Amino acid sequence: MQHLKIVKIGGNVVNDASKLHRFLNDFSKLDAPKILIHGGGILATTLAEKLAIKQTITDGRRVTDAATLELATMVYAGGINKNIVATLQPFNCNAIGLSGADGNLILGHKRLSFPVDYGFVGDIDTVNTKFLQLLFDGGFLPVISPIIHDGQGQLLNTNADTIATEIAKALATIYDVELIFCFEKVGVLTDVFNENSLIENLNFELYQNLKKDGFIANGMIPKLQNGFSALQNNVKFVRICHSDAINQKEAFKGTTLSL
Amino acid sequence: MQHLKIVKIGGNVVNDASKLHRFLNDFSKLDAPKILIHGGGILATTLAEKLAIKQTITDGRRVTDAATLELATMVYAGGINKNIVATLQPFNCNAIGLSGADGNLILGHKRLSFPVDYGFVGDIDTVNTKFLQLLFDGGFLPVISPIIHDGQGQLLNTNADTIATEIAKALATIYDVELIFCFEKVGVLTDVFNENSLIENLNFELYQNLKKDGFIANGMIPKLQNGFSALQNNVKFVRICHSDAINQKEAFKGTTLSL
Repeated sequence: MQHLKIVKIGGNVVNDASKLHRFLNDFSKLDAPKILIHGGGILATTLAEKLAIKQTITDGRRVTDAATLELATMVYAGGINKNIVATLQPFNCNAIGLSGADGNLILGHKRLSFPVDYGFVGDIDTVNTKFLQLLFDGGFLPVISPIIHDGQGQLLNTNADTIATEIAKALATIYDVELIFCFEKVGVLTDVFNENSLIENLNFELYQNLKKDGFIANGMIPKLQNGFSALQNNVKFVRICHSDAINQKEAFKGTTLSL
Repeated sequence: MQHLKIVKIGGNVVNDASKLHRFLNDFSKLDAPKILIHGGGILATTLAEKLAIKQTITDGRRVTDAATLELATMVYAGGINKNIVATLQPFNCNAIGLSGADGNLILGHKRLSFPVDYGFVGDIDTVNTKFLQLLFDGGFLPVISPIIHDGQGQLLNTNADTIATEIAKALATIYDVELIFCFEKVGVLTDVFNENSLIENLNFELYQNLKKDGFIANGMIPKLQNGFSALQNNVKFVRICHSDAINQKEAFKGTTLSL
């Protein structure tokens, strides 16, 4: 099967113009077919503050009310997405920016409001792999923002790691998929303040032990759960690395997951 | 040649949720292939006011500085575009929202800053008709926001009427193109306050006389100049009508231009 890279970048890259430019230059040199999925970082939150749109946090997670969804759609699917697309074009990548509503790419449903109502947050039901293949065949590079739709006219906010994972799973029957989560650290660390504590190879058992003992915590847990879930669903490789390490000439530096 | 409808809607429809929903329902029933181009109306201006981003007006036109371009990109290519796409999906239209940067759809250059510097405003050089044909062949409906790019990584703001016109001209060698400008009036009026003063057929000579005598003025002039320029470049039909009149069962009500 043909190799396909699915790369997710987070807020730390997206929010820093020079980091983003460097990353996109590196990313553009990777072999096609490939997909880029971006988060939004703090831009939507900053804008919400400026516009005095109150952000409600329930159980440590932001509630997406109607005004917040509108902001997220503007910032993620508009500002960030189109800037990435325009930046990639001179790098010889015919990028096309998409939300999950475009071409019915990602269909989902509003998360149940019980026990906790997170508002307009979407859980993914299906990924339109035919549409993605059509784009690859046409020589396009899909750049995907973390906004999906319910098929009934409602946009929904979804975690970008989850989108990358679900797209990877959906394409795993057609391609040898390599899923790469890029972020601000060199990989999974046992000590978040020490880059020398990098775990180069993380299998599921080690992950569970490190989690139990509190070495892996907070935002890394859902990211790794997504990663292991991808491996359990036929995704060939799952890696976590720094955004500067996407186009490595030498050996891979970062964390490689295994079951 | 196959018939192709290119419909442009302006701010008055885009800014009113119920009007927009009604329009999109009507629009969805038109035969494919078709293209929808939307303006942004006052949303970007409202947001600029809330964010205290000063809007400079030179010679009656807004100057697009960097902050205003960022807002326009968020509002037009993000918020408005994705809402239209999500609304069209349940109407059985596989809409795909695009800026001019996506798939290198519309390439342009920053307008010369002499004699007046309008900032990040783009004049159109080329429309990627092959990309549009690929989308039609795939059964997609392009929904286009008025943001283009210069191919060097820079997004640019462009008038939506002009985008509709340039796309119509570019496709006129391949399709029998019908270009329809929808707005808040029933058509071109000799008295803007009297809908009974509708000019059903407006040829170029009559237009020039009405303009000279001051019956046609303000925003209608660039719209009509776009319309006549389309006719001069092989676009088959150019019409101007109310957004409620897009799917007319009976005879067309509005203004039809001719040379």
